[in-house]
Amino acid sequence: MSDARTTVAVHGATGYAARELLTILARHPGAEVTALTTRRDDAPHVADVHPSLRGRLDLHCENLSPQQLAERAEIVFLCTPHGASMAVVPALLDAGAKVVDLSADYRLNDPAVYAEWYKLDHVDAARLPETVYGLPELLRTQIPGARLVANPGCYTSTTILALAPLLAGGYIEPTGIIVDAKSGTSGAGRNPKLGTLFCEVNENLAAYAVGDHRHQPEIEQVLSDVAQKPVDVLFTPHLVPMDRGILATIYATPAEPLTAEAAREALSMFYANSPFVRVLDGLPGTKATVGTNFCDLTVRVAKGKVVVLAALDNLVKGAAGVAVQNFNLITGRPEITGFPEVGG
Amino acid sequence: MSDARTTVAVHGATGYAARELLTILARHPGAEVTALTTRRDDAPHVADVHPSLRGRLDLHCENLSPQQLAERAEIVFLCTPHGASMAVVPALLDAGAKVVDLSADYRLNDPAVYAEWYKLDHVDAARLPETVYGLPELLRTQIPGARLVANPGCYTSTTILALAPLLAGGYIEPTGIIVDAKSGTSGAGRNPKLGTLFCEVNENLAAYAVGDHRHQPEIEQVLSDVAQKPVDVLFTPHLVPMDRGILATIYATPAEPLTAEAAREALSMFYANSPFVRVLDGLPGTKATVGTNFCDLTVRVAKGKVVVLAALDNLVKGAAGVAVQNFNLITGRPEITGFPEVGG
Amino acid sequence: MSDARTTVAVHGATGYAARELLTILARHPGAEVTALTTRRDDAPHVADVHPSLRGRLDLHCENLSPQQLAERAEIVFLCTPHGASMAVVPALLDAGAKVVDLSADYRLNDPAVYAEWYKLDHVDAARLPETVYGLPELLRTQIPGARLVANPGCYTSTTILALAPLLAGGYIEPTGIIVDAKSGTSGAGRNPKLGTLFCEVNENLAAYAVGDHRHQPEIEQVLSDVAQKPVDVLFTPHLVPMDRGILATIYATPAEPLTAEAAREALSMFYANSPFVRVLDGLPGTKATVGTNFCDLTVRVAKGKVVVLAALDNLVKGAAGVAVQNFNLITGRPEITGFPEVGG
Amino acid sequence: MSDARTTVAVHGATGYAARELLTILARHPGAEVTALTTRRDDAPHVADVHPSLRGRLDLHCENLSPQQLAERAEIVFLCTPHGASMAVVPALLDAGAKVVDLSADYRLNDPAVYAEWYKLDHVDAARLPETVYGLPELLRTQIPGARLVANPGCYTSTTILALAPLLAGGYIEPTGIIVDAKSGTSGAGRNPKLGTLFCEVNENLAAYAVGDHRHQPEIEQVLSDVAQKPVDVLFTPHLVPMDRGILATIYATPAEPLTAEAAREALSMFYANSPFVRVLDGLPGTKATVGTNFCDLTVRVAKGKVVVLAALDNLVKGAAGVAVQNFNLITGRPEITGFPEVGG
Repeated sequence: MSDARTTVAVHGATGYAARELLTILARHPGAEVTALTTRRDDAPHVADVHPSLRGRLDLHCENLSPQQLAERAEIVFLCTPHGASMAVVPALLDAGAKVVDLSADYRLNDPAVYAEWYKLDHVDAARLPETVYGLPELLRTQIPGARLVANPGCYTSTTILALAPLLAGGYIEPTGIIVDAKSGTSGAGRNPKLGTLFCEVNENLAAYAVGDHRHQPEIEQVLSDVAQKPVDVLFTPHLVPMDRGILATIYATPAEPLTAEAAREALSMFYANSPFVRVLDGLPGTKATVGTNFCDLTVRVAKGKVVVLAALDNLVKGAAGVAVQNFNLITGRPEITGFPEVGG
Repeated sequence: MSDARTTVAVHGATGYAARELLTILARHPGAEVTALTTRRDDAPHVADVHPSLRGRLDLHCENLSPQQLAERAEIVFLCTPHGASMAVVPALLDAGAKVVDLSADYRLNDPAVYAEWYKLDHVDAARLPETVYGLPELLRTQIPGARLVANPGCYTSTTILALAPLLAGGYIEPTGIIVDAKSGTSGAGRNPKLGTLFCEVNENLAAYAVGDHRHQPEIEQVLSDVAQKPVDVLFTPHLVPMDRGILATIYATPAEPLTAEAAREALSMFYANSPFVRVLDGLPGTKATVGTNFCDLTVRVAKGKVVVLAALDNLVKGAAGVAVQNFNLITGRPEITGFPEVGG
Repeated sequence: MSDARTTVAVHGATGYAARELLTILARHPGAEVTALTTRRDDAPHVADVHPSLRGRLDLHCENLSPQQLAERAEIVFLCTPHGASMAVVPALLDAGAKVVDLSADYRLNDPAVYAEWYKLDHVDAARLPETVYGLPELLRTQIPGARLVANPGCYTSTTILALAPLLAGGYIEPTGIIVDAKSGTSGAGRNPKLGTLFCEVNENLAAYAVGDHRHQPEIEQVLSDVAQKPVDVLFTPHLVPMDRGILATIYATPAEPLTAEAAREALSMFYANSPFVRVLDGLPGTKATVGTNFCDLTVRVAKGKVVVLAALDNLVKGAAGVAVQNFNLITGRPEITGFPEVGG
Repeated sequence: MSDARTTVAVHGATGYAARELLTILARHPGAEVTALTTRRDDAPHVADVHPSLRGRLDLHCENLSPQQLAERAEIVFLCTPHGASMAVVPALLDAGAKVVDLSADYRLNDPAVYAEWYKLDHVDAARLPETVYGLPELLRTQIPGARLVANPGCYTSTTILALAPLLAGGYIEPTGIIVDAKSGTSGAGRNPKLGTLFCEVNENLAAYAVGDHRHQPEIEQVLSDVAQKPVDVLFTPHLVPMDRGILATIYATPAEPLTAEAAREALSMFYANSPFVRVLDGLPGTKATVGTNFCDLTVRVAKGKVVVLAALDNLVKGAAGVAVQNFNLITGRPEITGFPEVGG
């Protein structure tokens, strides 16, 4: 890495994850944001799209082609929805840019699984084998050389960080795992929909997509790799009346007698070199993670079950923060660069 | 009034005010809901549109003409937006129905003022002189004979109930009045818009339409009638991260020396026969009015100003509740019928 | 039942469940509230304690003895904390009053279990065998003759209503049940504590008392009676940033192959005569139940598990509402009396 | 300023402003936090008091004397309540420390005014003349040499930043100003009280202390200095159901004809060298300032009034952030140090 800043662009800059990404990049000592895009043709200033960024970033959001993006930036972050990402990745890579894709397009190894869950044929399936899944806590050594990183889903990261140490160590059974996850509303995106109106979400709590959420196969794929055997989870997400934060309450069967202390010790060992994972004795709350790149974990044992609790900010550690970790690794910087809360 | 229930319909049944109206009508001993409408053509069950109504009202929302509505119901409540109401009122009245219109279409006496503030030409201006403004606390005696009642706006009711006694009694100057009003988000309607998404409203507070809100001329019109001289107000609304409730903090100049106690006494006298107005010694909070048809009022005097504070539920006393008061008066029932909180 | 109203008192009238109870009783055609108590000696008016009740109930909260209470009221509702209820129940019953106790003091059959979970010796254990557990949907026929009814806990009601039909019908295994429950903050009471301050709860989500909550043995006791065999559940409560509402997401193992449709049909049959239970095809949200005495239920089957979802308002169906159902049954009234949402 | 970090302590470290201050100081390149205090004797770790600080600051909160504090730190921030600050300031200064006091103890010039509004005799009145009022946007040049800085109140900063340019320039009349201010709940502190419980604040909006709030005389004192003539304001605060943020809607009378554009231009000129003030064309919302040290301002003219709108985060720009600006100025650092959002 040279001292020079790396030029970066954000494609699809008007949503919540993009805003959070820009908030981090605007203070990042090694990044220079040079382009933002939107499908709108009126080129709005980013401060009119995201008022919190006024005075922090002075750019307009333009309707740019992949080629134009690649001319402006060495690294392009894709904050586009699934489907839209795979439509631009080939051109971006061909033009010499590296890509961190925050969508789901390159997360699943098997294009048939992608087609089943996303109801779309994958248009760039040949590239899936060379894509790196961008969860540094698991795949830290593979990310530096990647040209295309598939940034993990928010629920996925939460669940994987909670379970990977226990599955890798053989502490829990790989089947029959129940993941009861609860998310703040920013995870549902910024497109106006009835279901995310204030008066629908506020003072309400409901599950959705029980056993049918697209992060379920992603969780199973990654955790099966970790466990070296098939992992299956029943995943139930809930929508919570708060902006940000995911809490996953996970129920698993111990493979052998296990104390909560031993399980927490296993987590602490596993994440000894991961500065963004905090293993707690107490129960995690989402609020202690909001606005940070931390994931808080703890374990309880009760009624014959191992209960793992995980909390993180879905927009940071669940999206933009891990994207910046990946950026740091790709550009040869310390993983914590740009995160003053951990000295970066 | 006979013992028989009056048949009623709600035109435009999918929004928040309609839901609240149906909640009251479903328990009303003198109303039988016989028709609901929507522009949708799939005739959804009302419980699928408003889940809270499941088991309380068993009707589908249909795409009905005014004639069909008038065949089904003696009284039609219009929960349509402005513009849409005046498009159906003539046909409804011609077909023999009576109408309580919750939109703004018949509130302003002067079609030129309507055109200026609503950017629409009034298509039924000839009917404005015979319309009754449906604020029972002021116009209780005129409503019973009305065929068409213009239900007041939510901010309007709050402001008028706060100021009418003091203007009628000459306690305050009619000019230079400042109304700083704050509303829960349900007042902004149920159509998906960026500005009313949970993550935009939650943990946020902002003013909008400073001195430029459509309820300002309505307030001035009604209060000028009360004061028998021109009243002018500067009206500033704010959007508050809560579902329901309006608080108006109103600053006026006393016409002569006035104590807070005397002002509260004036309010109490004025509303002695109004069961839904509570004059408090303490400061009103919106929460004590939510789900009820009460308007809570108090007065302070400080720094040479009379400060009137008013709280009510924008969906009930600010919309659906006063509509049912109007229904009761039109059909010859006691004004409190259908409001168990006051014995009705 | 005569036409006369039954005199009722609320002991411990300053909390949230008491406020909700008074809201219902104030509109109840068969109840006359004659006494309210508090430990405070300044006898505050109920409207100063609960501003929403102004104009609906005109009583002061007094510091009364059990004997004084029994002189004023035929039925006494206890909204006191556990420990405080059993201190007054003997005197109330001796003085001729009937009692509906909203605390936990008389819910558990075994005083040893009570002592273990509540860290208190039971001072009235001899009365436990004659106490009726006040969940009308299960024990409707036993309540009418009771002198002392133990009103169920809020989490307990939610869980029992969800599981009773499936356990009674043998559809699910009685062991290994996981109850992941989420509650609004009013369930934590009105005593000022750090953990229930607005800025601690708002924008936060956390579990508490994992596998260690006092409602867990209560759930197991009642459901074991229903199943006629020992039931064990792992119960994990969470605190949600909203006022009211409980959502329970419950994971059980089918005893034999079961479809979601068949399970919902079993629930519908079981509750055919229970006007406050709504079995839905869609997923329940708490908001559709807030302010009502409804419990909404549905079932999904996924990944080999039966997932039952239950929603209710913890202050109404989870506390005050079921207390009024019990009152109605004790006094020979229709169970729905006082609930205009279902025609009562 | 040397390259060495300045040692700092926070006295009274358990509240919300202290947490925010520690969040900034923990990332501040020129500060080393060396001591935290609490009246508790169990010396809790700061991460157990403020879970968000886990992994960011590794200190216990101790019960230290002023002398002990001064031995550990060159600069002491006082996050103690009024009354408690003046009890330790003399000893801290005598021991050689410099002090930034976040309480109200040294803000008012006149001890008689202090006694009237705070119901306490000032025990260190002789020091008031040499205290500097710590609002850098007004008094930037006086702060560097100060030993004791009185950090402004949150409502005060909001109001002063909004009005100072217009009063200094003679654009508005100094009397008859109305400040309708709305604050998130963190401004009410972290001591458990009924009024700040979640279920009291949530879904509620109310005014308090109308014309009677302690920030009113502070506002008048500072603005009278700015205007060089007596300024009087009627100040009405409101409690809003959100964590953080103040919005002030201020109504003043123009001294001569004034357009909104000209007024905004006056603000922009006045704050040309103030990196934390953003003058907007649009209306400010609190959310765009949360977690930052920005104050957002705009002006409207309507109905013969100048309406100034100001938004900031009460815990940052209204408390901890301006304290760090003061720290930077005292220690000879650039005012923006420690604020990565503006490049510091």
